[in-house]
Amino acid sequence: MTRIRFLVSYDGTDFCGWQKQGPSAGASLQQTLEEALSKVFDQKIDLSASGRTDAGVHALGQVCHFDVDVPEERFLKWDFCWAMQGVLQKNIVIRKAWIAPADFHATLSATHKTYRYFVYNHRRANPFWARNSHWVKKPLDLEFLQRCADQLVGEHDFKSFQTAGTPVLNTVRTIHEARWERRSANLVQFTITGSGFLKQMVRNLVGTQLQFEKFQREPTEIAQILAARDRQKAGATAPPQGLLLWKVFYPADLDKRCRPL
Amino acid sequence: MTRIRFLVSYDGTDFCGWQKQGPSAGASLQQTLEEALSKVFDQKIDLSASGRTDAGVHALGQVCHFDVDVPEERFLKWDFCWAMQGVLQKNIVIRKAWIAPADFHATLSATHKTYRYFVYNHRRANPFWARNSHWVKKPLDLEFLQRCADQLVGEHDFKSFQTAGTPVLNTVRTIHEARWERRSANLVQFTITGSGFLKQMVRNLVGTQLQFEKFQREPTEIAQILAARDRQKAGATAPPQGLLLWKVFYPADLDKRCRPL
Repeated sequence: MTRIRFLVSYDGTDFCGWQKQGPSAGASLQQTLEEALSKVFDQKIDLSASGRTDAGVHALGQVCHFDVDVPEERFLKWDFCWAMQGVLQKNIVIRKAWIAPADFHATLSATHKTYRYFVYNHRRANPFWARNSHWVKKPLDLEFLQRCADQLVGEHDFKSFQTAGTPVLNTVRTIHEARWERRSANLVQFTITGSGFLKQMVRNLVGTQLQFEKFQREPTEIAQILAARDRQKAGATAPPQGLLLWKVFYPADLDKRCRPL
Repeated sequence: MTRIRFLVSYDGTDFCGWQKQGPSAGASLQQTLEEALSKVFDQKIDLSASGRTDAGVHALGQVCHFDVDVPEERFLKWDFCWAMQGVLQKNIVIRKAWIAPADFHATLSATHKTYRYFVYNHRRANPFWARNSHWVKKPLDLEFLQRCADQLVGEHDFKSFQTAGTPVLNTVRTIHEARWERRSANLVQFTITGSGFLKQMVRNLVGTQLQFEKFQREPTEIAQILAARDRQKAGATAPPQGLLLWKVFYPADLDKRCRPL
Protein backbone atom coordinates (compact mmCIF):
# COMPACT_ATOMS: atom_id res chain seq x y z
CA MET A 1 0.00 0.00 0.00
CA THR A 2 1.23 3.49 -0.85
CA ARG A 3 -0.12 6.55 0.96
CA ILE A 4 -0.57 9.60 -1.27
CA ARG A 5 -1.08 13.14 0.01
CA PHE A 6 -2.32 15.80 -2.39
CA LEU A 7 -3.22 19.48 -2.52
CA VAL A 8 -6.43 20.34 -4.34
CA SER A 9 -8.18 23.59 -5.38
CA TYR A 10 -11.85 23.64 -6.17
CA ASP A 11 -14.62 26.06 -7.08
CA GLY A 12 -17.38 24.83 -4.76
CA THR A 13 -20.26 26.56 -6.59
CA ASP A 14 -21.56 23.47 -8.32
CA PHE A 15 -21.03 21.00 -5.46
CA CYS A 16 -23.22 20.08 -2.48
CA GLY A 17 -20.12 20.40 -0.28
CA TRP A 18 -17.30 18.01 0.63
CA GLN A 19 -19.57 15.28 1.96
CA LYS A 20 -22.30 13.39 0.16
CA GLN A 21 -25.73 14.84 1.05
CA GLY A 22 -28.13 12.36 -0.52
CA PRO A 23 -29.07 11.69 -4.16
CA SER A 24 -30.96 14.95 -4.88
CA ALA A 25 -28.27 17.33 -3.56
CA GLY A 26 -25.89 17.04 -6.52
CA ALA A 27 -22.33 15.76 -6.56
CA SER A 28 -20.12 16.06 -3.49
CA LEU A 29 -16.43 16.79 -3.78
CA GLN A 30 -15.47 13.62 -1.89
CA GLN A 31 -17.55 11.46 -4.22
CA THR A 32 -16.29 13.23 -7.36
CA LEU A 33 -12.64 12.84 -6.29
CA GLU A 34 -13.09 9.22 -5.11
CA GLU A 35 -14.67 8.33 -8.46
CA ALA A 36 -11.82 10.02 -10.36
CA LEU A 37 -9.22 8.16 -8.22
CA SER A 38 -11.02 4.85 -8.71
CA LYS A 39 -10.99 5.45 -12.47
CA VAL A 40 -7.27 6.30 -12.54
CA PHE A 41 -6.23 3.36 -10.30
CA ASP A 42 -8.93 0.87 -11.29
CA GLN A 43 -9.61 0.06 -7.62
CA LYS A 44 -11.93 1.43 -4.91
CA ILE A 45 -10.32 4.39 -3.10
CA ASP A 46 -11.39 5.99 0.20
CA LEU A 47 -10.38 9.60 0.54
CA SER A 48 -9.78 11.67 3.70
CA ALA A 49 -9.59 15.47 3.71
CA SER A 50 -8.34 17.96 6.29
CA GLY A 51 -11.99 18.82 6.92
CA ARG A 52 -15.34 19.24 5.24
CA THR A 53 -16.34 22.33 3.32
CA ASP A 54 -20.02 23.32 3.02
CA ALA A 55 -22.05 23.56 -0.18
CA GLY A 56 -20.82 26.52 -2.23
CA VAL A 57 -17.61 26.96 -0.21
CA HIS A 58 -14.32 26.95 -2.15
CA ALA A 59 -10.81 25.68 -1.45
CA LEU A 60 -7.47 26.89 -2.70
CA GLY A 61 -5.42 24.50 -0.54
CA GLN A 62 -7.53 21.58 0.66
CA VAL A 63 -5.30 18.63 1.68
CA CYS A 64 -6.32 14.97 1.21
CA HIS A 65 -4.79 11.53 1.55
CA PHE A 66 -5.59 8.01 0.38
CA ASP A 67 -4.01 4.57 0.31
CA VAL A 68 -3.62 2.73 -2.95
CA ASP A 69 -2.39 -0.72 -3.91
CA VAL A 70 0.31 0.52 -6.32
CA PRO A 71 4.07 0.32 -5.61
CA GLU A 72 5.78 3.63 -4.80
CA GLU A 73 8.18 3.31 -7.75
CA ARG A 74 5.34 3.61 -10.22
CA PHE A 75 4.45 7.06 -8.90
CA LEU A 76 7.93 8.40 -9.45
CA LYS A 77 7.80 7.90 -13.23
CA TRP A 78 4.28 9.21 -13.62
CA ASP A 79 2.46 12.56 -13.38
CA PHE A 80 -0.35 11.73 -10.95
CA CYS A 81 -1.79 15.29 -11.00
CA TRP A 82 -1.92 15.26 -14.77
CA ALA A 83 -3.59 11.83 -14.88
CA MET A 84 -6.25 13.08 -12.46
CA GLN A 85 -6.83 16.20 -14.54
CA GLY A 86 -7.79 13.95 -17.43
CA VAL A 87 -10.80 12.61 -15.52
CA LEU A 88 -11.81 15.75 -13.60
CA GLN A 89 -13.75 18.81 -14.73
CA LYS A 90 -12.28 22.30 -14.79
CA ASN A 91 -13.68 23.21 -11.35
CA ILE A 92 -11.30 20.83 -9.48
CA VAL A 93 -7.52 20.94 -9.92
CA ILE A 94 -4.97 18.69 -8.18
CA ARG A 95 -2.02 21.02 -7.67
CA LYS A 96 0.65 18.91 -5.96
CA ALA A 97 1.10 15.38 -4.68
CA TRP A 98 3.51 13.56 -2.36
CA ILE A 99 4.22 9.99 -1.22
CA ALA A 100 3.31 10.30 2.46
CA PRO A 101 4.51 8.28 5.46
CA ALA A 102 1.95 5.89 7.01
CA ASP A 103 1.51 8.18 10.02
CA PHE A 104 0.38 11.14 7.87
CA HIS A 105 -3.37 11.68 8.10
CA ALA A 106 -5.00 14.62 6.29
CA THR A 107 -7.61 15.12 9.04
CA LEU A 108 -5.82 14.02 12.22
CA SER A 109 -2.33 15.40 11.54
CA ALA A 110 -3.51 18.95 10.68
CA THR A 111 -2.32 21.47 13.27
CA HIS A 112 -4.05 24.61 12.02
CA LYS A 113 -5.89 26.08 9.06
CA THR A 114 -6.30 29.42 7.34
CA TYR A 115 -9.60 30.50 5.80
CA ARG A 116 -10.27 33.62 3.79
CA TYR A 117 -13.60 35.33 3.31
CA PHE A 118 -14.09 37.77 0.42
CA VAL A 119 -16.54 40.66 0.48
CA TYR A 120 -17.18 42.56 -2.75
CA ASN A 121 -17.83 46.04 -1.40
CA HIS A 122 -19.31 48.37 -4.00
CA ARG A 123 -22.64 50.01 -4.72
CA ARG A 124 -23.04 47.78 -7.80
CA ALA A 125 -22.42 44.03 -7.85
CA ASN A 126 -19.67 42.51 -10.01
CA PRO A 127 -20.64 39.49 -12.13
CA PHE A 128 -17.03 38.23 -12.08
CA TRP A 129 -17.03 38.06 -8.29
CA ALA A 130 -20.59 36.71 -7.91
CA ARG A 131 -19.42 33.11 -7.41
CA ASN A 132 -16.54 33.93 -5.08
CA SER A 133 -17.61 36.72 -2.76
CA HIS A 134 -20.41 38.11 -0.65
CA TRP A 135 -21.67 41.43 -2.00
CA VAL A 136 -22.06 44.28 0.53
CA LYS A 137 -23.24 47.59 -0.92
CA LYS A 138 -22.48 50.03 1.90
CA PRO A 139 -18.77 51.00 2.25
CA LEU A 140 -17.27 48.91 5.07
CA ASP A 141 -15.30 50.47 7.92
CA LEU A 142 -12.29 48.16 8.07
CA GLU A 143 -10.87 49.71 11.21
CA PHE A 144 -14.13 48.95 12.97
CA LEU A 145 -14.16 45.39 11.65
CA GLN A 146 -10.58 44.93 12.80
CA ARG A 147 -11.59 45.97 16.33
CA CYS A 148 -14.19 43.17 16.19
CA ALA A 149 -11.64 40.67 14.86
CA ASP A 150 -9.21 41.55 17.65
CA GLN A 151 -11.75 40.13 20.13
CA LEU A 152 -11.46 36.70 18.49
CA VAL A 153 -7.72 36.12 18.78
CA GLY A 154 -6.60 33.71 21.50
CA GLU A 155 -8.17 30.65 23.11
CA HIS A 156 -11.95 30.92 23.43
CA ASP A 157 -15.02 28.74 23.65
CA PHE A 158 -16.69 29.32 20.24
CA LYS A 159 -19.96 27.52 21.05
CA SER A 160 -21.92 30.71 20.20
CA PHE A 161 -20.49 30.56 16.68
CA GLN A 162 -21.22 26.90 16.00
CA THR A 163 -24.16 25.94 13.79
CA ALA A 164 -26.11 22.99 15.22
CA GLY A 165 -25.35 19.70 13.54
CA THR A 166 -22.57 17.26 14.26
CA PRO A 167 -22.22 17.31 18.08
CA VAL A 168 -18.72 18.29 19.25
CA LEU A 169 -17.67 17.72 22.87
CA ASN A 170 -15.05 20.43 23.02
CA THR A 171 -15.92 23.80 21.49
CA VAL A 172 -12.74 25.55 22.63
CA ARG A 173 -10.49 26.66 19.76
CA THR A 174 -7.43 28.89 19.45
CA ILE A 175 -7.39 31.69 16.89
CA HIS A 176 -3.87 32.74 15.90
CA GLU A 177 -4.80 35.63 13.61
CA ALA A 178 -7.97 37.40 12.47
CA ARG A 179 -7.35 40.22 10.02
CA TRP A 180 -9.52 42.45 7.83
CA GLU A 181 -7.83 44.16 4.89
CA ARG A 182 -8.56 45.80 1.56
CA ARG A 183 -7.22 43.61 -1.21
CA SER A 184 -8.14 46.02 -4.01
CA ALA A 185 -10.42 49.04 -4.47
CA ASN A 186 -13.66 47.06 -4.11
CA LEU A 187 -12.51 43.81 -2.54
CA VAL A 188 -12.28 43.27 1.21
CA GLN A 189 -10.66 40.15 2.65
CA PHE A 190 -10.95 38.57 6.11
CA THR A 191 -8.16 36.11 6.97
CA ILE A 192 -8.46 33.81 9.97
CA THR A 193 -6.01 31.15 11.16
CA GLY A 194 -6.85 28.79 13.98
CA SER A 195 -6.26 25.40 15.55
CA GLY A 196 -9.59 24.22 14.18
CA PHE A 197 -13.04 25.48 13.29
CA LEU A 198 -16.52 24.37 14.35
CA LYS A 199 -19.38 23.88 11.88
CA GLN A 200 -19.90 27.14 9.91
CA MET A 201 -17.76 28.94 12.49
CA VAL A 202 -15.96 31.22 10.00
CA ARG A 203 -19.22 32.19 8.27
CA ASN A 204 -20.86 32.85 11.66
CA LEU A 205 -17.90 34.98 12.74
CA VAL A 206 -18.00 36.96 9.49
CA GLY A 207 -21.79 37.39 9.62
CA THR A 208 -21.60 38.62 13.21
CA GLN A 209 -18.79 41.08 12.53
CA LEU A 210 -20.64 42.49 9.51
CA GLN A 211 -23.74 42.97 11.66
CA PHE A 212 -21.68 44.71 14.36
CA GLU A 213 -20.29 47.04 11.70
CA LYS A 214 -23.70 47.70 10.15
CA PHE A 215 -25.36 48.58 13.47
CA GLN A 216 -22.20 50.07 15.03
CA ARG A 217 -22.41 47.79 18.05
CA GLU A 218 -19.50 48.08 20.49
CA PRO A 219 -16.85 45.54 19.32
CA THR A 220 -15.99 44.48 22.88
CA GLU A 221 -19.52 43.00 23.13
CA ILE A 222 -18.16 40.12 21.05
CA ALA A 223 -16.49 38.91 24.26
CA GLN A 224 -19.95 38.73 25.85
CA ILE A 225 -21.26 36.68 22.93
CA LEU A 226 -18.34 34.26 23.36
CA ALA A 227 -19.03 34.03 27.11
CA ALA A 228 -22.73 33.31 26.54
CA ARG A 229 -22.00 30.01 24.70
CA ASP A 230 -25.32 30.53 22.89
CA ARG A 231 -25.76 30.53 19.09
CA GLN A 232 -28.78 32.84 19.47
CA LYS A 233 -26.54 35.65 20.75
CA ALA A 234 -24.36 35.76 17.62
CA GLY A 235 -25.28 37.16 14.20
CA ALA A 236 -26.41 35.55 10.95
CA THR A 237 -24.33 33.08 8.95
CA ALA A 238 -22.54 34.83 6.07
CA PRO A 239 -23.25 33.22 2.65
CA PRO A 240 -21.01 30.33 1.55
CA GLN A 241 -19.67 31.74 -1.73
CA GLY A 242 -17.36 34.22 0.04
CA LEU A 243 -15.49 31.50 1.93
CA LEU A 244 -12.24 29.89 0.77
CA LEU A 245 -10.18 27.27 2.62
CA TRP A 246 -6.81 28.89 2.02
CA LYS A 247 -4.19 26.62 3.60
CA VAL A 248 -3.86 23.64 5.95
CA PHE A 249 -0.77 23.28 8.14
CA TYR A 250 0.95 20.07 9.30
CA PRO A 251 3.92 19.50 11.64
CA ALA A 252 7.22 20.36 9.93
CA ASP A 253 8.71 16.90 10.54
CA LEU A 254 5.73 15.26 8.83
CA ASP A 255 6.00 17.68 5.89
CA LYS A 256 9.69 16.78 5.57
CA ARG A 257 8.90 13.07 5.38
CA CYS A 258 6.47 13.61 2.47
CA ARG A 259 8.28 13.06 -0.85
CA PRO A 260 7.07 15.30 -3.69
CA LEU A 261 5.97 13.49 -6.84
CA MET B 1 -39.66 58.75 -26.05
CA THR B 2 -36.60 58.80 -23.82
CA ARG B 3 -33.28 57.34 -24.96
CA ILE B 4 -31.34 55.52 -22.24
CA ARG B 5 -27.69 54.55 -22.49
CA PHE B 6 -26.26 52.05 -20.04
CA LEU B 7 -23.03 50.27 -19.15
CA VAL B 8 -23.30 46.54 -18.47
CA SER B 9 -20.91 43.85 -17.22
CA TYR B 10 -21.60 40.19 -17.84
CA ASP B 11 -20.06 36.78 -17.33
CA GLY B 12 -20.70 35.22 -20.74
CA THR B 13 -20.13 31.59 -19.66
CA ASP B 14 -23.79 30.63 -19.53
CA PHE B 15 -24.94 32.58 -22.60
CA CYS B 16 -24.99 31.68 -26.31
CA GLY B 17 -23.49 35.12 -27.01
CA TRP B 18 -25.00 38.57 -27.51
CA GLN B 19 -27.32 37.55 -30.33
CA LYS B 20 -30.08 34.96 -30.31
CA GLN B 21 -28.86 31.71 -31.91
CA GLY B 22 -32.05 29.66 -32.15
CA PRO B 23 -34.09 27.84 -29.50
CA SER B 24 -31.57 25.09 -28.59
CA ALA B 25 -28.58 27.38 -28.06
CA GLY B 26 -29.63 28.75 -24.67
CA ALA B 27 -30.35 32.33 -23.68
CA SER B 28 -28.67 35.21 -25.49
CA LEU B 29 -27.63 38.36 -23.67
CA GLN B 30 -29.74 40.56 -25.93
CA GLN B 31 -32.86 38.49 -25.29
CA THR B 32 -32.22 38.29 -21.53
CA LEU B 33 -31.72 42.06 -21.27
CA GLU B 34 -34.67 42.89 -23.55
CA GLU B 35 -36.93 40.65 -21.44
CA ALA B 36 -35.71 42.31 -18.23
CA LEU B 37 -36.31 45.79 -19.72
CA SER B 38 -39.78 44.80 -20.93
CA LYS B 39 -40.59 43.57 -17.42
CA VAL B 40 -39.37 46.76 -15.76
CA PHE B 41 -41.13 49.11 -18.23
CA ASP B 42 -44.13 46.93 -19.09
CA GLN B 43 -43.60 47.59 -22.82
CA LYS B 44 -41.65 45.95 -25.64
CA ILE B 45 -38.07 47.22 -25.76
CA ASP B 46 -35.51 46.84 -28.56
CA LEU B 47 -31.93 46.99 -27.43
CA SER B 48 -28.79 48.00 -29.38
CA ALA B 49 -25.27 47.20 -28.17
CA SER B 50 -21.85 48.52 -29.26
CA GLY B 51 -21.30 45.16 -30.89
CA ARG B 52 -21.93 41.44 -30.50
CA THR B 53 -19.91 39.20 -28.22
CA ASP B 54 -19.58 35.47 -29.02
CA ALA B 55 -20.79 32.60 -26.87
CA GLY B 56 -18.66 32.39 -23.71
CA VAL B 57 -17.10 35.85 -24.21
CA HIS B 58 -17.41 38.30 -21.29
CA ALA B 59 -17.87 42.06 -21.01
CA LEU B 60 -16.80 44.47 -18.34
CA GLY B 61 -17.95 47.58 -20.21
CA GLN B 62 -20.48 46.73 -22.91
CA VAL B 63 -22.54 49.81 -23.88
CA CYS B 64 -26.21 49.62 -24.92
CA HIS B 65 -29.07 51.98 -25.68
CA PHE B 66 -32.84 51.74 -26.00
CA ASP B 67 -35.85 54.03 -26.41
CA VAL B 68 -38.69 53.88 -23.96
CA ASP B 69 -42.06 55.57 -23.69
CA VAL B 70 -41.47 57.05 -20.21
CA PRO B 71 -40.90 60.78 -19.52
CA GLU B 72 -37.34 61.78 -18.63
CA GLU B 73 -38.42 63.19 -15.25
CA ARG B 74 -39.41 59.75 -14.01
CA PHE B 75 -35.84 58.49 -14.47
CA LEU B 76 -34.37 61.22 -12.31
CA LYS B 77 -36.24 60.07 -9.19
CA TRP B 78 -35.62 56.38 -9.72
CA ASP B 79 -32.67 53.97 -9.60
CA PHE B 80 -32.90 52.29 -12.99
CA CYS B 81 -29.82 50.08 -12.42
CA TRP B 82 -31.24 48.86 -9.15
CA ALA B 83 -34.66 48.11 -10.69
CA MET B 84 -32.95 46.08 -13.42
CA GLN B 85 -30.91 44.15 -10.87
CA GLY B 86 -34.16 42.95 -9.35
CA VAL B 87 -35.09 41.07 -12.53
CA LEU B 88 -31.60 39.95 -13.64
CA GLN B 89 -29.44 37.08 -12.44
CA LYS B 90 -26.06 37.56 -10.80
CA ASN B 91 -24.15 37.07 -14.07
CA ILE B 92 -25.34 40.41 -15.56
CA VAL B 93 -24.92 43.73 -13.76
CA ILE B 94 -26.04 47.16 -15.05
CA ARG B 95 -23.35 49.46 -13.71
CA LYS B 96 -24.34 52.96 -14.86
CA ALA B 97 -27.06 54.63 -16.90
CA TRP B 98 -27.58 57.96 -18.61
CA ILE B 99 -30.35 59.85 -20.43
CA ALA B 100 -28.84 60.02 -23.92
CA PRO B 101 -29.47 62.53 -26.75
CA ALA B 102 -31.42 61.22 -29.74
CA ASP B 103 -28.24 61.15 -31.86
CA PHE B 104 -26.44 58.74 -29.51
CA HIS B 105 -26.34 55.21 -30.92
CA ALA B 106 -24.51 52.43 -29.02
CA THR B 107 -23.37 50.75 -32.26
CA LEU B 108 -23.00 53.59 -34.74
CA SER B 109 -21.53 56.28 -32.46
CA ALA B 110 -18.73 54.07 -31.07
CA THR B 111 -15.29 55.32 -32.18
CA HIS B 112 -13.08 52.58 -30.74
CA LYS B 113 -13.04 49.63 -28.36
CA THR B 114 -10.63 47.94 -25.99
CA TYR B 115 -10.62 44.18 -25.52
CA ARG B 116 -8.57 42.17 -23.05
CA TYR B 117 -7.59 38.53 -23.34
CA PHE B 118 -6.45 36.63 -20.24
CA VAL B 119 -4.08 33.68 -20.31
CA TYR B 120 -3.60 31.65 -17.14
CA ASN B 121 0.03 30.61 -17.51
CA HIS B 122 1.05 27.90 -15.07
CA ARG B 123 1.87 24.21 -15.12
CA ARG B 124 -1.35 23.47 -13.24
CA ALA B 125 -4.75 24.96 -14.11
CA ASN B 126 -6.59 27.21 -11.65
CA PRO B 127 -10.29 26.43 -11.04
CA PHE B 128 -10.98 30.08 -10.14
CA TRP B 129 -9.74 31.25 -13.54
CA ALA B 130 -11.31 28.41 -15.57
CA ARG B 131 -14.29 30.52 -16.67
CA ASN B 132 -12.30 33.68 -17.43
CA SER B 133 -9.02 32.68 -19.02
CA HIS B 134 -7.32 30.40 -21.50
CA TRP B 135 -4.92 28.01 -19.76
CA VAL B 136 -1.42 27.75 -21.28
CA LYS B 137 0.94 25.38 -19.44
CA LYS B 138 4.33 26.35 -20.91
CA PRO B 139 5.81 29.63 -19.58
CA LEU B 140 5.14 32.36 -22.15
CA ASP B 141 7.85 34.64 -23.47
CA LEU B 142 6.16 38.04 -23.19
CA GLU B 143 8.92 39.91 -24.99
CA PHE B 144 8.46 37.62 -27.95
CA LEU B 145 4.69 38.05 -27.86
CA GLN B 146 5.13 41.83 -27.73
CA ARG B 147 7.25 41.69 -30.88
CA CYS B 148 4.30 39.93 -32.55
CA ALA B 149 1.82 42.49 -31.20
CA ASP B 150 3.97 45.37 -32.51
CA GLN B 151 3.22 44.10 -36.05
CA LEU B 152 -0.49 44.72 -35.53
CA VAL B 153 -0.44 48.41 -34.60
CA GLY B 154 -1.52 50.83 -37.33
CA GLU B 155 -3.97 50.61 -40.23
CA HIS B 156 -4.09 47.14 -41.81
CA ASP B 157 -6.41 44.90 -43.77
CA PHE B 158 -7.31 42.22 -41.19
CA LYS B 159 -9.10 39.87 -43.62
CA SER B 160 -6.71 37.03 -42.65
CA PHE B 161 -7.94 37.31 -39.05
CA GLN B 162 -11.66 37.33 -39.84
CA THR B 163 -13.71 34.20 -39.23
CA ALA B 164 -16.16 33.55 -42.08
CA GLY B 165 -19.73 34.56 -41.30
CA THR B 166 -21.35 37.95 -41.66
CA PRO B 167 -19.84 39.39 -44.89
CA VAL B 168 -18.09 42.72 -44.38
CA LEU B 169 -17.15 44.89 -47.35
CA ASN B 170 -14.29 46.72 -45.73
CA THR B 171 -11.85 44.64 -43.67
CA VAL B 172 -9.43 47.49 -42.99
CA ARG B 173 -9.17 48.44 -39.29
CA THR B 174 -6.84 50.64 -37.25
CA ILE B 175 -5.19 49.22 -34.14
CA HIS B 176 -4.13 51.91 -31.66
CA GLU B 177 -2.43 49.66 -29.11
CA ALA B 178 -1.61 45.96 -28.74
CA ARG B 179 0.18 45.12 -25.49
CA TRP B 180 1.16 41.91 -23.69
CA GLU B 181 1.88 42.18 -19.98
CA ARG B 182 2.05 40.10 -16.82
CA ARG B 183 -0.80 41.06 -14.53
CA SER B 184 0.28 38.79 -11.68
CA ALA B 185 2.60 35.81 -11.19
CA ASN B 186 0.49 33.41 -13.28
CA LEU B 187 -1.77 35.73 -15.23
CA VAL B 188 -0.86 37.20 -18.61
CA GLN B 189 -3.00 39.88 -20.24
CA PHE B 190 -3.25 41.04 -23.85
CA THR B 191 -4.84 44.47 -24.35
CA ILE B 192 -5.90 45.65 -27.78
CA THR B 193 -7.60 48.91 -28.74
CA GLY B 194 -8.86 49.55 -32.25
CA SER B 195 -11.34 51.40 -34.43
CA GLY B 196 -13.34 48.20 -34.80
CA PHE B 197 -12.94 44.45 -34.88
CA LEU B 198 -14.01 41.81 -37.41
CA LYS B 199 -15.72 38.56 -36.44
CA GLN B 200 -13.52 36.70 -33.90
CA MET B 201 -10.63 39.01 -34.85
CA VAL B 202 -9.23 39.37 -31.32
CA ARG B 203 -9.38 35.62 -30.70
CA ASN B 204 -7.74 34.95 -34.09
CA LEU B 205 -4.99 37.48 -33.33
CA VAL B 206 -4.37 35.93 -29.90
CA GLY B 207 -4.39 32.37 -31.25
CA THR B 208 -1.93 33.31 -34.00
CA GLN B 209 0.45 35.11 -31.64
CA LEU B 210 0.39 32.16 -29.20
CA GLN B 211 1.25 29.82 -32.10
CA PHE B 212 4.10 32.10 -33.20
CA GLU B 213 5.44 32.01 -29.63
CA LYS B 214 5.07 28.25 -29.33
CA PHE B 215 6.88 27.50 -32.59
CA GLN B 216 9.22 30.51 -32.39
CA ARG B 217 8.18 31.79 -35.81
CA GLU B 218 9.73 35.09 -36.80
CA PRO B 219 7.28 37.83 -35.58
CA THR B 220 7.72 39.95 -38.71
CA GLU B 221 5.99 37.12 -40.67
CA ILE B 222 2.74 38.46 -39.20
CA ALA B 223 3.04 41.26 -41.78
CA GLN B 224 2.99 38.57 -44.50
CA ILE B 225 -0.13 37.00 -43.01
CA LEU B 226 -1.83 40.42 -43.07
CA ALA B 227 -0.76 40.96 -46.69
CA ALA B 228 -2.10 37.53 -47.77
CA ARG B 229 -5.73 38.48 -46.85
CA ASP B 230 -6.34 34.75 -46.33
CA ARG B 231 -7.77 33.22 -43.12
CA GLN B 232 -5.87 29.97 -43.86
CA LYS B 233 -2.53 31.73 -43.34
CA ALA B 234 -3.30 32.77 -39.74
CA GLY B 235 -3.39 30.57 -36.66
CA ALA B 236 -6.19 28.95 -34.67
CA THR B 237 -8.94 30.89 -32.89
CA ALA B 238 -8.16 31.24 -29.17
CA PRO B 239 -10.98 29.96 -26.92
CA PRO B 240 -13.77 32.42 -25.99
CA GLN B 241 -13.52 32.32 -22.18
CA GLY B 242 -10.29 34.36 -22.15
CA LEU B 243 -11.86 37.33 -23.96
CA LEU B 244 -13.35 40.37 -22.23
CA LEU B 245 -14.84 43.46 -23.90
CA TRP B 246 -13.13 45.99 -21.66
CA LYS B 247 -14.33 49.43 -22.78
CA VAL B 248 -16.17 51.17 -25.62
CA PHE B 249 -15.32 54.76 -26.52
CA TYR B 250 -17.63 57.49 -27.89
CA PRO B 251 -16.93 61.08 -29.04
CA ALA B 252 -16.33 63.38 -26.07
CA ASP B 253 -19.11 65.80 -27.10
CA LEU B 254 -21.63 62.92 -27.16
CA ASP B 255 -20.44 61.72 -23.74
CA LYS B 256 -20.94 65.23 -22.39
CA ARG B 257 -24.52 65.38 -23.63
CA CYS B 258 -25.41 62.15 -21.81
CA ARG B 259 -26.88 62.96 -18.37
CA PRO B 260 -26.01 60.44 -15.65
CA LEU B 261 -28.96 58.93 -13.80
